[in-house]
Amino acid sequence: MIKKWKKKSSKYLLENKIFKMREDLVTSPKLKTDHNVWVMEVPTWVNIIPITPQNDVVLVDQYRFGSEKSSLEIPGGMVDPGEDPKEAAIRELLEETGFVGKKVIEIGRVESNPAIMSNYTYTYLALDCEEKSSQKLDGTEDIEIIKKHISEIPNLIRNRDIEHALVISAFHFYNLYLSSE
Amino acid sequence: MIKKWKKKSSKYLLENKIFKMREDLVTSPKLKTDHNVWVMEVPTWVNIIPITPQNDVVLVDQYRFGSEKSSLEIPGGMVDPGEDPKEAAIRELLEETGFVGKKVIEIGRVESNPAIMSNYTYTYLALDCEEKSSQKLDGTEDIEIIKKHISEIPNLIRNRDIEHALVISAFHFYNLYLSSE
Repeated sequence: MIKKWKKKSSKYLLENKIFKMREDLVTSPKLKTDHNVWVMEVPTWVNIIPITPQNDVVLVDQYRFGSEKSSLEIPGGMVDPGEDPKEAAIRELLEETGFVGKKVIEIGRVESNPAIMSNYTYTYLALDCEEKSSQKLDGTEDIEIIKKHISEIPNLIRNRDIEHALVISAFHFYNLYLSSE
Repeated sequence: MIKKWKKKSSKYLLENKIFKMREDLVTSPKLKTDHNVWVMEVPTWVNIIPITPQNDVVLVDQYRFGSEKSSLEIPGGMVDPGEDPKEAAIRELLEETGFVGKKVIEIGRVESNPAIMSNYTYTYLALDCEEKSSQKLDGTEDIEIIKKHISEIPNLIRNRDIEHALVISAFHFYNLYLSSE
């Protein structure tokens, strides 16, 4: 049984619109010694696999500041304060693509990175998606919509066209969902 | 075609043994306006799926400071400066479990989180693993070894016993590897 590390104190080192960086002073249950650890506090995230009646997946391509290149992903983003994660996923899908699903179901949840981040990412599947409006992008957002047949996804992952860990986890939940249908 | 954002300047806000936090001033190619963005600079990470001749997966359970609870994962960690990622994965496997694989192959690579992190996580598969020594843990490390038959992994993910996104991505690569064998 793995023991909890006791938190003795906690302070914020940084704060911006994406995260708060926290430094905790914790005590090792094994050695009883004190150590500093760092936690990126982030709100709940969501992502959503939108599938059309033709079995196309509605993907989004956008520039990412961590990797400093564009990234082919499924729609997703941060849950707003007080917002339900499922509603957030439906909102992100509409804003980033203009698509709406007839049925939206939760298919999984991951710890985004339990070593250093505090949050979960919930994954949804949106079935029978249709384009209902144009994108509703924030001022600086620049998102290209790219449709790929669901059968192409494994090769897009193999060939590193899709590289985002949270997107690959989402497709893993999609496969688990199909195998339990 | 998604355009690159031009980086005008860059500064470090924080630095510790796990990451450096960078703030970049970047220019939107769409609006030509300047914006601050934040990047967690982290070394390359690795993880490794160790499988025994009995088709057990050698998992590790350890306390995680982001989620503030224990986390069931495959072995993994940071690549040391100048170290080859494959060697790092073999080293982490030995340190955390005492197991050694007869054959180790790269089966995938993800961007850990391209929105906010700079690094890749490489995934390896270690076949025919056997216990060659005891664990070689750092002073404070407390890692419990838990073996699970490979057939149990899908339900461990479904039931949220395995929750780490990078571990679920790793098992996705394992499935892709099996399907292309």
